[in-house]
Amino acid sequence: MYQLHYYPSNANAAPHMVLEELGQAYELVLVDRVKNAQKSEEYLAINPNGRIPTLVDGGLVLSEAAAIVLHLVDQHPEANLAPRIGSPERAKFYRWLIFLTNSLQEELMIWQYPDRLTGTEAAATEIVRYGAERRAGAYLDVIEQHLEANGPLFLGDKLSAADFYLVMLARWARPMSNPPRSRQHIARLLDMVTALPAVRRAYEHEGVTGEIC
Amino acid sequence: MYQLHYYPSNANAAPHMVLEELGQAYELVLVDRVKNAQKSEEYLAINPNGRIPTLVDGGLVLSEAAAIVLHLVDQHPEANLAPRIGSPERAKFYRWLIFLTNSLQEELMIWQYPDRLTGTEAAATEIVRYGAERRAGAYLDVIEQHLEANGPLFLGDKLSAADFYLVMLARWARPMSNPPRSRQHIARLLDMVTALPAVRRAYEHEGVTGEIC
Repeated sequence: MYQLHYYPSNANAAPHMVLEELGQAYELVLVDRVKNAQKSEEYLAINPNGRIPTLVDGGLVLSEAAAIVLHLVDQHPEANLAPRIGSPERAKFYRWLIFLTNSLQEELMIWQYPDRLTGTEAAATEIVRYGAERRAGAYLDVIEQHLEANGPLFLGDKLSAADFYLVMLARWARPMSNPPRSRQHIARLLDMVTALPAVRRAYEHEGVTGEIC
Repeated sequence: MYQLHYYPSNANAAPHMVLEELGQAYELVLVDRVKNAQKSEEYLAINPNGRIPTLVDGGLVLSEAAAIVLHLVDQHPEANLAPRIGSPERAKFYRWLIFLTNSLQEELMIWQYPDRLTGTEAAATEIVRYGAERRAGAYLDVIEQHLEANGPLFLGDKLSAADFYLVMLARWARPMSNPPRSRQHIARLLDMVTALPAVRRAYEHEGVTGEIC
């Protein structure tokens, strides 16, 4: 049985939605950030960057949310949460998932925790936070343009795990001055995906109530 | 025939090494950053983020270096530059490639271009640059520990496209005060991979002479 080490609404949310959509049995293990458990010796032994999530799959211990998503969709090809290996659609799926993790997610992390880059320099922190929000907004605009031309989902009518990944990041980005939902095609994707029972169950299990994103 | 839009030693280097190692025919198309060609209307039409590289594969236009790498290794499974789909080794390959693109690469980008986050605030720029170098160093330490326990390559004795990706980033990181090569197991990987004729050819085609990283 899969074991997902998580904290509510952290980067585990996308793998969690995928597990629910796949209908797989899994166990949730809380990594209590309130107690800084992600930096405990025990957790660092399975995730040397001290980041959440980690997936344990038998003897395999896997970090990086996007890598966990890729592993899960490969393990269960019959669920079609990613296109067939070697197809042009698979390449597009990679493109959006990689872009979400290395661009939008990274800017949102800087925006949420600018002091990780600037330390105690309050003025620098504000500048960095503002810059990260501006860049995250530009990335959201690129996604909006893509969805307008090719939507309603990342791969047109075909649901994929990239859509779950955007839901996760859109939740983080809600406090932005120009949040994801302010863009009509992104809002449509978010509405479609958060209406899925698997998505609602995943957030409920994490204790998230109310509007998801 | 593949067409790779590139600029010397930019993020095209990893896909370029993969193309050479695969022995595939391809055409290089220079995106002249000196003339800011990556932000031209023509280039933005194929790469809306204005980033290098882009791969054109027949009707498929693909951005994101890590996505291009994944597409190429999937197109040519006989070359074994990534483990078999669905295997635990494949999951580990995803983990390292994703970590390289969303953590080490992103920190190196901030370190090289801190003013993209801070604008004209010189003091903030220095703080951000310093923080990014510190975090990139911590990521390199995680890689070093992994290679010490599981090396000499990311997947043990088995060469994969993740090794090419590290060579590309290690070249960017050479000016760090504690550069990648200062760590013995990373240095060993870099020596092994840069000794490959395909890797040397890729850099030569880009006009890079002397030590690669």
